[in-house]
Amino acid sequence: MTSSSLLPAGTAISGDYSGHYRPQLHFSPPQGFMNDPNGMFLDAEGTYHLYYQYNPSATIAGNQHWGHATSTDLYTWENQPIALAPDNSTAYIFSGSAVTDPNNTSGFFPNQTNGVVAIYTLAGPQQQVQDIAYSYDNGYTFTKYAGNPVLSAGSAQFRDPKVFWYEDHWVMVVAFSQEFVLAIYTSPNLTSWSHASNFSYHGLLGTQYECPNLVEMQVYGSNETMWLMYLSINPGAPLGGSIGEYFPGSFNGTHFTAVDAAARIADWGKDNYASQFFYGTGTEAISIAWASNWQYCNLVPTGPAEGWQSTMSLPRTNYLRQGARNQGYTLVSLPYDLARLRSSESTASTTNLGANGTLFADVSGGSGAFMLDVNVTGLNLTGLSNTASINFTISSSGSRESITGGIFVAGDSTMWLDRGGISGWDNVYNTNRFSTALVLNNTLDFQVVVDRSIIEVFALEGERSATAVYYSEALLDTVVLRSGNLNSGVSINAQVRMLNGTWGSGAIQANGTSVGQNSTGMVRRELVAEESWKF
Amino acid sequence: MTSSSLLPAGTAISGDYSGHYRPQLHFSPPQGFMNDPNGMFLDAEGTYHLYYQYNPSATIAGNQHWGHATSTDLYTWENQPIALAPDNSTAYIFSGSAVTDPNNTSGFFPNQTNGVVAIYTLAGPQQQVQDIAYSYDNGYTFTKYAGNPVLSAGSAQFRDPKVFWYEDHWVMVVAFSQEFVLAIYTSPNLTSWSHASNFSYHGLLGTQYECPNLVEMQVYGSNETMWLMYLSINPGAPLGGSIGEYFPGSFNGTHFTAVDAAARIADWGKDNYASQFFYGTGTEAISIAWASNWQYCNLVPTGPAEGWQSTMSLPRTNYLRQGARNQGYTLVSLPYDLARLRSSESTASTTNLGANGTLFADVSGGSGAFMLDVNVTGLNLTGLSNTASINFTISSSGSRESITGGIFVAGDSTMWLDRGGISGWDNVYNTNRFSTALVLNNTLDFQVVVDRSIIEVFALEGERSATAVYYSEALLDTVVLRSGNLNSGVSINAQVRMLNGTWGSGAIQANGTSVGQNSTGMVRRELVAEESWKF
Repeated sequence: MTSSSLLPAGTAISGDYSGHYRPQLHFSPPQGFMNDPNGMFLDAEGTYHLYYQYNPSATIAGNQHWGHATSTDLYTWENQPIALAPDNSTAYIFSGSAVTDPNNTSGFFPNQTNGVVAIYTLAGPQQQVQDIAYSYDNGYTFTKYAGNPVLSAGSAQFRDPKVFWYEDHWVMVVAFSQEFVLAIYTSPNLTSWSHASNFSYHGLLGTQYECPNLVEMQVYGSNETMWLMYLSINPGAPLGGSIGEYFPGSFNGTHFTAVDAAARIADWGKDNYASQFFYGTGTEAISIAWASNWQYCNLVPTGPAEGWQSTMSLPRTNYLRQGARNQGYTLVSLPYDLARLRSSESTASTTNLGANGTLFADVSGGSGAFMLDVNVTGLNLTGLSNTASINFTISSSGSRESITGGIFVAGDSTMWLDRGGISGWDNVYNTNRFSTALVLNNTLDFQVVVDRSIIEVFALEGERSATAVYYSEALLDTVVLRSGNLNSGVSINAQVRMLNGTWGSGAIQANGTSVGQNSTGMVRRELVAEESWKF
Repeated sequence: MTSSSLLPAGTAISGDYSGHYRPQLHFSPPQGFMNDPNGMFLDAEGTYHLYYQYNPSATIAGNQHWGHATSTDLYTWENQPIALAPDNSTAYIFSGSAVTDPNNTSGFFPNQTNGVVAIYTLAGPQQQVQDIAYSYDNGYTFTKYAGNPVLSAGSAQFRDPKVFWYEDHWVMVVAFSQEFVLAIYTSPNLTSWSHASNFSYHGLLGTQYECPNLVEMQVYGSNETMWLMYLSINPGAPLGGSIGEYFPGSFNGTHFTAVDAAARIADWGKDNYASQFFYGTGTEAISIAWASNWQYCNLVPTGPAEGWQSTMSLPRTNYLRQGARNQGYTLVSLPYDLARLRSSESTASTTNLGANGTLFADVSGGSGAFMLDVNVTGLNLTGLSNTASINFTISSSGSRESITGGIFVAGDSTMWLDRGGISGWDNVYNTNRFSTALVLNNTLDFQVVVDRSIIEVFALEGERSATAVYYSEALLDTVVLRSGNLNSGVSINAQVRMLNGTWGSGAIQANGTSVGQNSTGMVRRELVAEESWKF
């Protein structure tokens, strides 16, 4: 890349969100290449800010800027001008975080209580160091700090600072990526940092640690909170490429202690990386991940076909709870308030699919986004055959493509997902099949959200999630849900609902009506939650 | 299963080893269903004993007996009569280990120094307990100990004892499977056991811990040894189903301490489980794993077609060495002395494939077993394109089937394997593609061993291995190796060699000559190592 590939901060980029592959309720960049979510914070006026690793000049990784978008509901995003840009083509703006500084600990904000500081890695040819930039206008424009770097360690692989306020000081967790060390630093003012502790050689190593998060979150069913160290590794994930893992534990302001030495993988698909948690939401832990994999993110067809590359996951609300049997604290992750996007009427539904039943739904003609929601009670695992299952096929009537999945409930109960029936795009790293083991009793639930080129599956109230991208020749327009050989007393409530698109420019609504083009692609469309049911 | 499905110990089972799917140099059972290797030990006369979880009455799991086979070279196996059988159909002989007791610590062997004791789980309807049986004849026949069980803990999930002698006492490591605890017990005599310590909540949990091993092994390039805790989990492996992982560390006779809290997966394929290490080989750590996955082991076509189910991995020699970059101690695993089975002449070879070269080999007409061996020097990663690669295609001229794989060397160097081109058998858990990240310098090597329905790949002198089963309509009979866009100074030595079959009954040799049928299927064929080069 040459320096001419860099764009200055403040450059507005517009996009067309009507393309065949373009997700209608997930965030994707207006043009160019996106990877890790960065700097996620909730500002003083209730607006969520999402920054992201951004190459505005090409649909492959490189030229790292911070792209920017804002939302008040985490679904309806307004693209904002580039927030941070490299000064030159030898040092890029890598991943990091952002915080509000209401008490002016930094000294940058003598006249306001809504100052914002971004903390990011400046990745130069010799070293990666931590720089900061401050914003007087709620995070839309930044001034790089004259005293940068605020933290250097002489390392070429030292990156992805995640910063938060703890009682009376700032805390940064940052990765010495190729030494498998997550270092914890503390600061009174965001400009001066002291090393406090290391958390190292935990979990799957891959060949690099990246994008650590350390976040306090609620423990389900109690008034307590715990801390979670969240870590992404790349390459070298078990499924190939990149993946996230996490370690529940405790944090005392300087040291994180994991509850055990277990390695817990965050998502059983192949497209969920670099998850970051919003700053400023208290103990309501809301995350967004990059929904791709470094093995093929540069190669998927959205770039050549539509000029953009990569999608973010759904925003997710997270908490910890005791996993099934003795699995210890498990991260539970569910779509954040997706109910507001659901069509008020279901496309197809049944209050009891029965032990051997089929539900069909025609999901053509809408936004291309829809969801399947299945809730099972009265399950009796005793004596079931190995074929006892609740499976789905999501297919295209215009091509011979399908994604299949579901749950085989007998024996070692397993949830599975197969994207191998998609023929529109392929690659040697495009693993077809994923699965996860479930420990079931007499209930189960799963939800499937489909959005044109991404599918996300949640099971057991979010105890398990899978994220997978796919690139079909034709939009998937048919849902079939089938139960087979379950016990006679089982009760299965299932519904398929269209989901509204949220992109003003070319967005397509659940009923198939376009809201029309907008010249900038940046108009925010107001949405009203149709019901109070929280997904 | 009914009690009529049980066979008494001493029952001889013969098999036909000429079938289409039947591996010619890997161990597979004569008939019926096999899973975990058990009781592996080297006897006083230099014979290796392999027992295994065995259902002699069906080609699906159940009716657990201990099958038995012996070998002096770990490739040429002689099937032996059933070694241990259940007394009734309510309590089965699950996995375990065997040791020699030359000093008669047990008191069972007043008149001999080659006594053998098997220690195994008796799995009853209420509890799993540890039983023992002793053998006066080197492990061919056993007498169950009258004082059984020797260890019970009131648990229904307490199994797979691995026993070894440590300085002055016996040590057992055994799994409390659903509590994620590997318990260490000690004994002076194999009949009386005391709890010493627990090693728990390490690594990937899945939903069960199974088949622990604790073994001392050599550290490559030094005179030192280290200890390795090896563990298998099922279900819930990242790739789905079952997998092995390991923890390097130290052992003081009562307590194992891992060097770190990292989770290290043993094999990047999907068919390597329940690996066990031979007792009696000193610090030369030799292992064999079950080459299947609980997700589909009952469903693969060898049972219906040929009356047998499951293959063992190649015997592997193991040691620990410093992994690439900072990855800590890595388990290195290579085929044990495979050179003795290689054809003296290569089918195809080149001393320098070059930066852009192709090697073809016709491997039809032989045993169906062959290997590809690739050694690269003079690699220069600087400036290589993303397409720089050394890839192979192993295909069938009689069907449109293939297995492909190789190494993309630039950027995040990755080794990949794709069995998705095999159309002879499929299943929703039959994941197509696997990959692992490599940290390369200027050399690399990989070896591929193919044996009719199993492929094993080794790279970086065994630092990485992948095991995958496949079931093709036609035998794979063509090998193509291709280098592309490598640097001009690269040197690639590559050869394809046929491998001799080792099964007397119907075994097919590298040159395609049958050695003829034998009425018992148990005749041992002498092999002479053709050269001293150790694979």
